[in-house]
Amino acid sequence: MQFSEEKFARHMRPINGSAIREIFKLLARPGMISFAGGNPSDTALEPRVVARLAGEVLEKYGTKLLQYGATDGFGPFRESAAEFLRHSRVNCTADDILPTQGGTQAFDVLLKALIDPGDVVLCESPTFLGAIQAMREYNAKLVEMPTDDEGVIVEAAEALIKQHHPKLMYVIPTFQNPTGITLSLERRRALAALAAKYGVVIAEDDPYRDLRYAGEALPTIQSFDEEGWVVYMSSFSKYIAPGLRLGAAAVTNPLLRRKMVIGKQSADTHSPLLNQAIVDAYLRAGLMPDHLARICGDYKKQLDAMLKGFDAFPAGTRHTVPQGGLFVWAELPEGMDAMRAFEAAVAQGVAFVPGTHFYPEGGYMNTLRLNFSMCDIPTIEKGMAKLGEVIKGL
Amino acid sequence: MQFSEEKFARHMRPINGSAIREIFKLLARPGMISFAGGNPSDTALEPRVVARLAGEVLEKYGTKLLQYGATDGFGPFRESAAEFLRHSRVNCTADDILPTQGGTQAFDVLLKALIDPGDVVLCESPTFLGAIQAMREYNAKLVEMPTDDEGVIVEAAEALIKQHHPKLMYVIPTFQNPTGITLSLERRRALAALAAKYGVVIAEDDPYRDLRYAGEALPTIQSFDEEGWVVYMSSFSKYIAPGLRLGAAAVTNPLLRRKMVIGKQSADTHSPLLNQAIVDAYLRAGLMPDHLARICGDYKKQLDAMLKGFDAFPAGTRHTVPQGGLFVWAELPEGMDAMRAFEAAVAQGVAFVPGTHFYPEGGYMNTLRLNFSMCDIPTIEKGMAKLGEVIKGL
Repeated sequence: MQFSEEKFARHMRPINGSAIREIFKLLARPGMISFAGGNPSDTALEPRVVARLAGEVLEKYGTKLLQYGATDGFGPFRESAAEFLRHSRVNCTADDILPTQGGTQAFDVLLKALIDPGDVVLCESPTFLGAIQAMREYNAKLVEMPTDDEGVIVEAAEALIKQHHPKLMYVIPTFQNPTGITLSLERRRALAALAAKYGVVIAEDDPYRDLRYAGEALPTIQSFDEEGWVVYMSSFSKYIAPGLRLGAAAVTNPLLRRKMVIGKQSADTHSPLLNQAIVDAYLRAGLMPDHLARICGDYKKQLDAMLKGFDAFPAGTRHTVPQGGLFVWAELPEGMDAMRAFEAAVAQGVAFVPGTHFYPEGGYMNTLRLNFSMCDIPTIEKGMAKLGEVIKGL
Repeated sequence: MQFSEEKFARHMRPINGSAIREIFKLLARPGMISFAGGNPSDTALEPRVVARLAGEVLEKYGTKLLQYGATDGFGPFRESAAEFLRHSRVNCTADDILPTQGGTQAFDVLLKALIDPGDVVLCESPTFLGAIQAMREYNAKLVEMPTDDEGVIVEAAEALIKQHHPKLMYVIPTFQNPTGITLSLERRRALAALAAKYGVVIAEDDPYRDLRYAGEALPTIQSFDEEGWVVYMSSFSKYIAPGLRLGAAAVTNPLLRRKMVIGKQSADTHSPLLNQAIVDAYLRAGLMPDHLARICGDYKKQLDAMLKGFDAFPAGTRHTVPQGGLFVWAELPEGMDAMRAFEAAVAQGVAFVPGTHFYPEGGYMNTLRLNFSMCDIPTIEKGMAKLGEVIKGL
């Protein structure tokens, strides 16, 4: 008998992750200027520091790092991660921390714990496309919450909660992916209150928080949560190195944390101890503040260059002016098609992600997401000039 | 509103992983002799080698290991893993390899790709309890295949396939967990034929294969698979270090591999590049053959000590005589209760896992699983003597 698509779980059949995969293949072309990814800059990564710390922790802990570990995490890492998150005004202790394979896995095990097929999850419109795929893999029903330049519109979110009785709300409050928008203080407080009022778990996905180049840091949604409805998901991917695949979720609700641990047991047993120990050593050595100051200084200049580059775009183009993170979001004049712009731009050696991919229901064809962290300033200038030219010529 | 169990996905509510967790808590008691785990011996682990290789690969590849990588894996690791598996008579190329977080994740993403709620999965009776939990988390219906001292009974398996139309069959063919039994050559061929005849995917979980202390290696089930029905799951946990969390699945069916990659994208984006590069360097340096020879020599002596220790058990106790792996399985005389034996033994400072936990439907109260890899020979002798005494005194 031949294997066929019908063997797949029904809801998995249409999920093929192809749109973005095709884009990333194009990036391999020599000379391609990429505003498409979401990687840190190579200059933000410190292979020598990681090598030194790897040597130190293997010397210190020996075979302990190579044995099986507990699913709920390596004790020293849980302590240092909790301390790191408390600096961001996350209310947590070491016992609340679940190490995960980046923020990705925190959301995956949360979905596993909560979602029956057909359960509604509210998400921002637009939202991170990786999260869209994850929710579809759990056969959730995605409902988009309207947003404006302060993030989720609370009244609209409340109306959707009353209408759909969601189990979960997925929010990226700070320097959102894809828009770069930051949820305002009052709305953070209001979303936490909605969660408690209606019994909705909030997944607060906050991996960009410490990449702030302007303005004041806001309290997390989690800081307003008194009953354990908010799962705070952080990651060291954007701060230290995505290749280490290490994140930390703060889950103050013990029932929910236990169920997430059970999901993680079956997913991967535990996060690699070497990776937990390296990040722990990084945090304990006090390397983070200076490192963040350095990379934020660089990213700010790259962001400024990109923002300036919009001068080359057609009149009527709108774009966000993020205070941090890795992304700028643009809306071309009504009627322009970012998919067509994408094809033309790639032919000219510049890539980005058409914004339609960030909407569960598609549409919004005139939007695009631009990343500035992976290119140096001359490349950003050149790429934005070319992109403006291409779009004007459509 | 207070968070309550009713928020969890329905099939996740009864999964609390507690039986074994409670056992592992007991192991922390000072002086406890543990035959309960499945860890490699600390003497099998090489922190200095890993530290040296970590330094070398970070020097060689630099920032590449710290950036995001492809979900389908780090190229050099896929090559060396394919070569390693070909030595075990797995038919595969580098393109067939999917790096995973141990064997655990290969099974998790395979379940994600295939299982609709209620789909039947056939498994050995008894089988690995971690796999039982994983299947339940996907809301699969577990059906046990009868086994004897050559593994799965093929005629019984075929009858169950006709009756239940399973999507998947889960088999641990070599030095099975928990029994230590090895599936015979003819049955390997026959299971591959059943898979192709009825269109059933086989998950061949083979993490102990190279821990062979006697007898001749048998071809894998996968080696008899001509149409891509067998997913071969290997892991470096038992050969190099479980703490690194790295396995390699060989998936020759491109449709299925692609769907597993999509599942892994949402689960953890990719496996950590540093860990893939370390294992790649280990394999390329040719360290594996001598390492396996050394640890197999040690484990053989430990196994022999454990087998000899059964002299202290009550007459009528039966046990397997594995040719490799980490486990021995025992059946106490009919009517004896291994759960009661467990309680009494723990009070005397010896732990094991009652066999009932390895049966999806429970029962088989007179069985137990004993691990010998984590104790030195005097400890095994002492522990088996005590255990025999405790059981005789029940």
